[in-house]
Amino acid sequence: MSPYDELMAFDHDTQALSQVAGRLGWDQETMMPRGAAPQRAEEMAAMESVLHARRTDPRVGEWLAAIDGDQLDAVAAANLREIKRSFERASKVPADLAATIARVTSSAQGTWADARAADDVAAFLPVLEEVVKLKRQEGAALAAGGDIYGAMLADYEPGTTAADLEAMFGALRPGLTELRAAILERPAPKGVNGTFDEAGQLKLSATLAQAFGYNTTHGRIDKAVHPFSSGSGLDVRITTRTNPEDPFNCFYSTIHEVGHACYEQNIDADHLLTPLGAGVSMGVHESQSRIYENQLGRSRAFTGWLYGQMRDAFGDFGIESEDAFFAAVNRVSNGYIRTEADEVQYNLHVLLRFDLERALMTGNLAVGDLEAAWNDRFRADFGYDVDKPSNGVLQDVHWSVGLFGYFPTYSLGNVYAGCLHEALRGAVPDLDAQLAGGNTSAATGWLRENLQRHGGLYTPREVITKASGMEPGPEPFLAYLKEKFSGIYGL
Amino acid sequence: MSPYDELMAFDHDTQALSQVAGRLGWDQETMMPRGAAPQRAEEMAAMESVLHARRTDPRVGEWLAAIDGDQLDAVAAANLREIKRSFERASKVPADLAATIARVTSSAQGTWADARAADDVAAFLPVLEEVVKLKRQEGAALAAGGDIYGAMLADYEPGTTAADLEAMFGALRPGLTELRAAILERPAPKGVNGTFDEAGQLKLSATLAQAFGYNTTHGRIDKAVHPFSSGSGLDVRITTRTNPEDPFNCFYSTIHEVGHACYEQNIDADHLLTPLGAGVSMGVHESQSRIYENQLGRSRAFTGWLYGQMRDAFGDFGIESEDAFFAAVNRVSNGYIRTEADEVQYNLHVLLRFDLERALMTGNLAVGDLEAAWNDRFRADFGYDVDKPSNGVLQDVHWSVGLFGYFPTYSLGNVYAGCLHEALRGAVPDLDAQLAGGNTSAATGWLRENLQRHGGLYTPREVITKASGMEPGPEPFLAYLKEKFSGIYGL
Repeated sequence: MSPYDELMAFDHDTQALSQVAGRLGWDQETMMPRGAAPQRAEEMAAMESVLHARRTDPRVGEWLAAIDGDQLDAVAAANLREIKRSFERASKVPADLAATIARVTSSAQGTWADARAADDVAAFLPVLEEVVKLKRQEGAALAAGGDIYGAMLADYEPGTTAADLEAMFGALRPGLTELRAAILERPAPKGVNGTFDEAGQLKLSATLAQAFGYNTTHGRIDKAVHPFSSGSGLDVRITTRTNPEDPFNCFYSTIHEVGHACYEQNIDADHLLTPLGAGVSMGVHESQSRIYENQLGRSRAFTGWLYGQMRDAFGDFGIESEDAFFAAVNRVSNGYIRTEADEVQYNLHVLLRFDLERALMTGNLAVGDLEAAWNDRFRADFGYDVDKPSNGVLQDVHWSVGLFGYFPTYSLGNVYAGCLHEALRGAVPDLDAQLAGGNTSAATGWLRENLQRHGGLYTPREVITKASGMEPGPEPFLAYLKEKFSGIYGL
Repeated sequence: MSPYDELMAFDHDTQALSQVAGRLGWDQETMMPRGAAPQRAEEMAAMESVLHARRTDPRVGEWLAAIDGDQLDAVAAANLREIKRSFERASKVPADLAATIARVTSSAQGTWADARAADDVAAFLPVLEEVVKLKRQEGAALAAGGDIYGAMLADYEPGTTAADLEAMFGALRPGLTELRAAILERPAPKGVNGTFDEAGQLKLSATLAQAFGYNTTHGRIDKAVHPFSSGSGLDVRITTRTNPEDPFNCFYSTIHEVGHACYEQNIDADHLLTPLGAGVSMGVHESQSRIYENQLGRSRAFTGWLYGQMRDAFGDFGIESEDAFFAAVNRVSNGYIRTEADEVQYNLHVLLRFDLERALMTGNLAVGDLEAAWNDRFRADFGYDVDKPSNGVLQDVHWSVGLFGYFPTYSLGNVYAGCLHEALRGAVPDLDAQLAGGNTSAATGWLRENLQRHGGLYTPREVITKASGMEPGPEPFLAYLKEKFSGIYGL
């Protein structure tokens, strides 16, 4: 075997083991008995040790050194790019630190969940302190003298720097706050009225998943506290949740996760269990979940179809027309929770977290001051006070599990989705006519063909640029928001 | 660190990874989307590679050689005994043979399932021939000149030889055939009548699991095609199944798996993720599942309580008294299928398999003659002909997946359960009064204290002997059967 073939054979098992670790994470959120948590932490740590040992195996370095990069085709070169990135990244982090982070974050997640349920920040802070300390150590090892936060960002969005984000978000924020202020001066549209039984929500949720092309031969939908998508290749599972008063929470969580899952399911089969067999970055991933959820799922055309589905499922819920339903779905109102935020305000929530976590990682903010900093920033951006920690600093799981550098990819995804949506509208002129019939296949087919199928073949910016035909920037997203919400609110 | 401490630290991760592999197996049977199977096979193979490499890691041999066994306490000595056994076992089988067996049995299982569905023995035999050939090679490598079948048995029941089993089963078989014949001359008791809705069965099934002490903080119950228990330590899950006409299938499958699961859950916490943190052998495991299911769950006293529960849940189902219900639960009737057999006939099914698989492994029976040998033996023991292969030689999955030496542990478990039951009755004189109220705590507490909590600390025969106060033999089991069924059938 050539060094390249040996490397790929070795990497195949690493990819398979990585899927196993992902499956354990899914199990922990959906099926695992509560009392299993301490043992699961040991299992995750052992898996992490195995994966770390493989990613840093000296043979990987030898194979990488022995391969003549000039002789490789595009796929092989991309495989090599990803394996090299993973090898160099893993080699920088000491094995015992990696295992400690896996163990600590596995149990920290349970502590966070309990603290959120009890609205008890103090119960979470010591654990967060430990996580932050460990992640800063990891960041310092990765950055090797450079920007700690930027090094973390590279785990989720390689090729984008903290400075890139600062510039992009700097252009986004004034547009968003201005639009938000204009909207909130207008009368609020009517919302839905009534209670929506869980079985009915889950049934329509499954219909929506199918409408957007989610393949349950290679996936399944379960309930979880926090909706997520998990896995790559032939086994991509999603979760959703229900709220009896707010069926949109369930439906749009589902469509969002279906966007993530379809990206994974639609990658070319050739890439299965290779470094290219998963979505290329979190930002590109989020572009898919958001374009499914918002530009398609919350469009006037698609909500017209959904209105009929909901009337069939739940009868009268106080909304008299498709236009009124479109406005209800897209209602902009005050709220504390990022995951429940409308399209206009969502990114303000994200930008808040980006600035705070960056300050935590660079040492400019102490964990003990985090809650106050959160509450101050929230008041500044939204104009009112956080009422309780579960509506503020305790609302997201991310930091408890060590995800620093992840939040900004949500907003980056929205920016990417804006670019893709502009190109998609150009490519499929009769898109609205199709969406009005509940048919997403032209849109999802275009995304599959131009973006999803490539998996990790191109870098994040490359694939967005190729698919959308433009250098990514915030303008198309802002223009889309302004047009849509000006229509709904008569601005 | 001492060599012992280094070895135990290394083994800790091996144990944790082994739990992960077990969890994948659970997922495959309960949750996995159908189309994920090819990817799961790769994931399982990668996990197996990792585990095999750890079990045969040269450092394990070095640590074992460096440890002074005379300096160890009982727990450390037992840990060493188990690690040594695993290391020597794994080191004896060439890696390519192990890989070939894994690959061949993986596809053989599918061939078997198709052949069983089509009642086509000829479609299965060539594959079985291959499996038998490979397993004999493996057995020869393990036996190193000794008894091939005995070497296989040692995988499931270390310390018990084929000759031990032959002696034990030789004493069992005439007693069973005699009792069976006497019973079948008597009129059959009335069975239950009606259909029993799934939700009601699952609810009562959960009540039964709780009544026998199953802890769902560290476990969960799901539906699966085949009931099983999976996992050790803090995460021990079981499955059950329902049949609308036969609620006992669900209830006694559940109690059986609860017996397995409680053995795992009740092991001393000190042994968590060590070689002693799981049930010590298949035979001892089966002794727990069978004593929960039969000696306790199918007792006159407990069925009296269950009768009330079933009347509350399902109303009238054609049984007019507790005595009639006891007889219905313990009805003995002709049947082909081992897993559906009553207490009297079950072991006749197992003994048949033991003799045939031993003959296959020692080369005294050719695969081509297997069906005829099965049918002859069945006629001899049961008095009527097998009507089709799916009711005969094709009924069990075991041989297709290479499980030779496993079947006899089912009957050994019944023999052990007979000994334990005799001791338990002596230790808890008012047991029936408690069972009549649905209270199993004295019985399960006695089993926990005297057997379950030790995990792998003692060898199988040691722990049975210590707990029951006798050398294990078939007499108590036979005496129990004779007394119970003489009462029911008026012999």
